[in-house]
Amino acid sequence: MKKITLAHGNGGVETNEFIQKVFKKYLGDFLCADGEDAGIFINNAKSYCMSTDSYVISPIFFPGGDIGKLSICGSSNDVAMMGAKPKYISIGFIIEEGFEIIELEKILVSIKKELEQTSLQIISADTKVVPKGNVDKIFINTTAIGEIVKEGISAKNLKEGDCIVLSGDIGRHGSMIFCARSEIDLHSNLQSDCKQLYPMLDKIFQSDISINALRDATRGGLAAVMNEWANASKVNIILEEKSIPISKEVKGVCEILGLEPYVLANEGVCVFSATASDAIKICDILNSSSKGKEATIIGRVEGNNIATPKVILKNDWGTKRYLEYPQGEILPRIC
Amino acid sequence: MKKITLAHGNGGVETNEFIQKVFKKYLGDFLCADGEDAGIFINNAKSYCMSTDSYVISPIFFPGGDIGKLSICGSSNDVAMMGAKPKYISIGFIIEEGFEIIELEKILVSIKKELEQTSLQIISADTKVVPKGNVDKIFINTTAIGEIVKEGISAKNLKEGDCIVLSGDIGRHGSMIFCARSEIDLHSNLQSDCKQLYPMLDKIFQSDISINALRDATRGGLAAVMNEWANASKVNIILEEKSIPISKEVKGVCEILGLEPYVLANEGVCVFSATASDAIKICDILNSSSKGKEATIIGRVEGNNIATPKVILKNDWGTKRYLEYPQGEILPRIC
Repeated sequence: MKKITLAHGNGGVETNEFIQKVFKKYLGDFLCADGEDAGIFINNAKSYCMSTDSYVISPIFFPGGDIGKLSICGSSNDVAMMGAKPKYISIGFIIEEGFEIIELEKILVSIKKELEQTSLQIISADTKVVPKGNVDKIFINTTAIGEIVKEGISAKNLKEGDCIVLSGDIGRHGSMIFCARSEIDLHSNLQSDCKQLYPMLDKIFQSDISINALRDATRGGLAAVMNEWANASKVNIILEEKSIPISKEVKGVCEILGLEPYVLANEGVCVFSATASDAIKICDILNSSSKGKEATIIGRVEGNNIATPKVILKNDWGTKRYLEYPQGEILPRIC
Repeated sequence: MKKITLAHGNGGVETNEFIQKVFKKYLGDFLCADGEDAGIFINNAKSYCMSTDSYVISPIFFPGGDIGKLSICGSSNDVAMMGAKPKYISIGFIIEEGFEIIELEKILVSIKKELEQTSLQIISADTKVVPKGNVDKIFINTTAIGEIVKEGISAKNLKEGDCIVLSGDIGRHGSMIFCARSEIDLHSNLQSDCKQLYPMLDKIFQSDISINALRDATRGGLAAVMNEWANASKVNIILEEKSIPISKEVKGVCEILGLEPYVLANEGVCVFSATASDAIKICDILNSSSKGKEATIIGRVEGNNIATPKVILKNDWGTKRYLEYPQGEILPRIC
């Protein structure tokens, strides 16, 4: 490892190794968010969590959203995944000299719309302009703070017998980006699933349902989350291929481009691990809202203290294969 | 205003206009940090403030620091300027494909050293890798959270009769960048003043001294802070040129390159507004530490409810000139 490669940012094996061997070597002692989407702080009467993300997506405008919408949804979702209500957000823009102000205004309108969805307040903002060629159009960093309303969620908390619940069909964001960048004109109606998850989760957070783990399946897709959980909790996860909802459009694009839907990024889909009875309650609540009507149980957790945890995908004919942690260059600048 | 220009990011008149006419038009209703370096939130027993900044400096390694050190100092200082002890920080890296890992490691070492200075904890981190040519080497966003220990500081709080205290000599960071980028070999010993200010301010924050306003003089330099304060508080500010400490090296560079030291960026200098008696106490405390030994009173606040507030610079011979808000392209990528 001498130079940074695109695989260092793919959300898979190489990213993980890069973070472990480079970042943690120097900064490990200062980290308080290890292995989760957001760090927890302030233990007065209330607990808060905070999550940062830089958005470098290309193209900046895409079917189903733009870099502005994505930058709010992404960080809002990262704190929601800690059982938190998104409260405050900071926004940092890095803009290329010569960028059209009318395009910036479109992005700001999208940001405004998303802030209204969850009553998010901007607590700090920053703009840097860099000379032409020093950045590609516009990058946005957002850092969100959420107030924790559902305690006890962690990637390390999966228990034998838990069911895995998926909130919606997978692969839309990732396959949309493949189509948008493909030189083949795919004439697809595919849109990114980019959305804030908190409005769909609020009712679950307010209930007495216990959530053992919760994560949005972004970079690296469902495969990355399942492998991270299996490793963090030292359990096996068995998924039923036929239970995993995938739209016709995504299936079509995957067939044409030879893609695996399980590693494709999502921007509005989350996964839960909970006891069987709580998993049913989660599905019921999600199914009652339009955004969660496809939510379903897709698998279960087996074993405990497993030395080499595995994620196993069972297909319709009962055969099994390992669902590996994504590897290599998947696609840069997907978020 | 149709396209983004470098002047939109200079920290002067154009940046201000750009923020007012574009950003606030759409996001103004969601802002809770208007006109200050950081936003305040959570009013339980304790108050916290938060500030975000993207660091895009070129060159990434410079005399007196690097982009890593700068990214911690900058956001740490922004919350310190609200009377807060820096507590938590998030870090987002955007790295160009092909960047040398050994250079990244140097940056991480600098970050580690700075975190140790003020016991800052990393609460969230993110890394994005983008294809070669999509970003110039490395950009870093940091978002800091501070716990407010000294209340009542605001750009709107300058009072007639206040004294202006400057914590150290000005123009080092800005003139160092000019030298580093100049094609003329200036053979200067000039180093950036990049440092965290909180360790120097802690004693003042813990005392009964009232600080009316406090700000670090970064982009746009002393001239920008003085003009922002005068406008926000509707007062005139009279500065004594001979009282403003400027090092020989900075004076030399300014003469050679035809620069005005008052608009040059600083990364380790702050300005206070306080009553005359508190200003003397502030100077005494600062002077007792090695980093603040040049701290001195440089001017005073006059008038109130002034319709067109001015910053006036009196020179050694008693003549006066307006110190204007910086305008036009000063220098891109200074921080």
